[in-house]
Amino acid sequence: MAKNSAGSSETARKPIRCRAAVVRKAGEPMVIEEIIVAPPGSAEVRVKIICTSLCHSDVTFWKLKDPPGFVPRILGHEAVGIVESVGEDVQEFSEGDTVIPIFLPDCTECADCTSKKSNLCSKFPFEVSPWLHRDGTSRFTDLKGETLYHFLFVSSFSEYTVLNTANVTKVDPAIPPNRACLLSCGVSTGVGAAWRTANVEAGSTVVIFGLGAIGLAVAEGARLCGAKKIIGVDINPQKFETGKIFGVTDFVDSRNCGDKSLRQVINEITNGGADYCFECVGMASLVEEAYACCRKGWGKTVVLGVDKPGAELKFSSFEVLHFGKTITGSLFGGLKPKSDISTLVKRYMDKELQLDEFVTHEVGFEDINKAFDLLLEGKSLRCVIWMDK
Amino acid sequence: MAKNSAGSSETARKPIRCRAAVVRKAGEPMVIEEIIVAPPGSAEVRVKIICTSLCHSDVTFWKLKDPPGFVPRILGHEAVGIVESVGEDVQEFSEGDTVIPIFLPDCTECADCTSKKSNLCSKFPFEVSPWLHRDGTSRFTDLKGETLYHFLFVSSFSEYTVLNTANVTKVDPAIPPNRACLLSCGVSTGVGAAWRTANVEAGSTVVIFGLGAIGLAVAEGARLCGAKKIIGVDINPQKFETGKIFGVTDFVDSRNCGDKSLRQVINEITNGGADYCFECVGMASLVEEAYACCRKGWGKTVVLGVDKPGAELKFSSFEVLHFGKTITGSLFGGLKPKSDISTLVKRYMDKELQLDEFVTHEVGFEDINKAFDLLLEGKSLRCVIWMDK
Repeated sequence: MAKNSAGSSETARKPIRCRAAVVRKAGEPMVIEEIIVAPPGSAEVRVKIICTSLCHSDVTFWKLKDPPGFVPRILGHEAVGIVESVGEDVQEFSEGDTVIPIFLPDCTECADCTSKKSNLCSKFPFEVSPWLHRDGTSRFTDLKGETLYHFLFVSSFSEYTVLNTANVTKVDPAIPPNRACLLSCGVSTGVGAAWRTANVEAGSTVVIFGLGAIGLAVAEGARLCGAKKIIGVDINPQKFETGKIFGVTDFVDSRNCGDKSLRQVINEITNGGADYCFECVGMASLVEEAYACCRKGWGKTVVLGVDKPGAELKFSSFEVLHFGKTITGSLFGGLKPKSDISTLVKRYMDKELQLDEFVTHEVGFEDINKAFDLLLEGKSLRCVIWMDK
Repeated sequence: MAKNSAGSSETARKPIRCRAAVVRKAGEPMVIEEIIVAPPGSAEVRVKIICTSLCHSDVTFWKLKDPPGFVPRILGHEAVGIVESVGEDVQEFSEGDTVIPIFLPDCTECADCTSKKSNLCSKFPFEVSPWLHRDGTSRFTDLKGETLYHFLFVSSFSEYTVLNTANVTKVDPAIPPNRACLLSCGVSTGVGAAWRTANVEAGSTVVIFGLGAIGLAVAEGARLCGAKKIIGVDINPQKFETGKIFGVTDFVDSRNCGDKSLRQVINEITNGGADYCFECVGMASLVEEAYACCRKGWGKTVVLGVDKPGAELKFSSFEVLHFGKTITGSLFGGLKPKSDISTLVKRYMDKELQLDEFVTHEVGFEDINKAFDLLLEGKSLRCVIWMDK
């Protein structure tokens, strides 16, 4: 992508009129309409989105009738684009930079962002569903002047969007955009969970509960870390075939364990319990199962799935004390957005990290509702949406 | 201590008649009586106990009327002694070696014992309250020929005891016995929890819930690791004075937080949460409080206290996923008995590790019931019992 391909010289510091997919009513097909995108303010950049892909969180918030669901809203948070213009005080980015938006802020300066141990920026704490920029205003209006709400500080279902500099990272423009966008959320979360959160050791055994896109990305991360045995657990045995692409070596159909419990089956395959278990479904009871499937002495259970509000994880006090296992969880797989995404881009370009295999569908922007249908029907892992098609 | 001071040449391979404190009825004063101690069998050593100290677990099991409480039984598991004789096949120990019994086995050969990540021997899995040797027999009988039960594979409230080689470790004989015995369980558990389980970093903040002997030992471990702020939480403000000896810098009376919650107070002192929290009381609700007091991003909660059977720890699924904190627990502070105890002995001899300050009382063997009274009345941290006085 050439510098200035976003056409900044003509549009900088002016509002841009462009197309966006707007959720006008929760759960109903989005409407592609013309909107007005404000110029970037202080510490902000305006980005021309090239590709965006659909993540489950978009669907979750699309369905929500009550807060933190809001309408009219522009969803989307997995994307890649080109900086069209930057706020007056912005040094970190220039017009023409290829960038990936990141829902998890990385200010690069706070105690967390400067520590290797955390990816939870304390200057801009993570919010579940922010619907406005941090100054309490929106950068989007429709042609009648009505405010359109943001999503996760990204809102990539628009040809142009405005991002805080903490919510965007520069990447090598050589990576194809329909691969780059995957690193914005889901695939990075899974790969990172194996690589950063669990720090999977070579030769180890891994169990992944739920072989959706996140679970498969955990497998890919574990494969890259050199795991010896990667066991997928799912209620759909067909997932094993896809899993094999990402290094899954064994499969357990959790609904079909015969006269054994799931933990007994895993215990036998792993000869006493797995080194690492990842819960990627979002069921508290499955986290407890994952904990039971971990090996005494050093087993680590990583929570990645989002259960419903108020869900509780329960563990036996005796077991936590006596078994020496660890329970943890992470957002964005524990990755530091502004450094680790570049590493993943490089590993893709070096043909180590597999991204192509996650893309099951590609559509033009006009067909964005098809992408929702495909995900809802369980037919797609990732559907890439091209903004200019 | 000179070689053969245990007098092995005369007694080896023969039963020994000696004194032991026997629990004849749960919760009633022990009776010092003459018993017969069998010679060591295969992979066993017979040890002349020099000093033993009293740990809360001894008191817990002394009170128990039902299994895993058993009578008649010889309690005691914190001790130091001298090898009197060894089983025919034993190479690791010789008569005259100064040794510390260890309730947590270390076979030195299994996957766990050869790994740096675990201290839970998988050849001889930890049992809560074993009352016989692993072959299902006892090494103790009374003068009427009745079997006397063991405790934790140690039973140090006897002038002589028989230990499996996995349950004993050699130490530098230069360490005074009334200090060495402390490293057999409680003090090592606390120091190890900071050093090995949590791996406390220099400059970090630590909160310790419960300033009993274990909690104070955690403080000592955290102090040795270079923690900057060590906050003690207890319902007895007098504990702060003792705590200061072991590096406690701040104290919070959990029953006297004014109009704030405990977590609010800790949050203010630590500027957003502690790096490490240790629960040393054994209350599930306090573990949850400890988790809440840990810092987002990297906070680690370590469970050391033993709650009643069936107690459950509950955590919000949302928080485990979003806060990036870790929950873990350990036995014996995660220490590898056969290597780490020697390191602690050396650190004591080098005047780094404080042990003297844990010993609040010393009594002769005849007064062993006084040691129980002192602990029950909350007057002692550690009472050392000298076997030959």
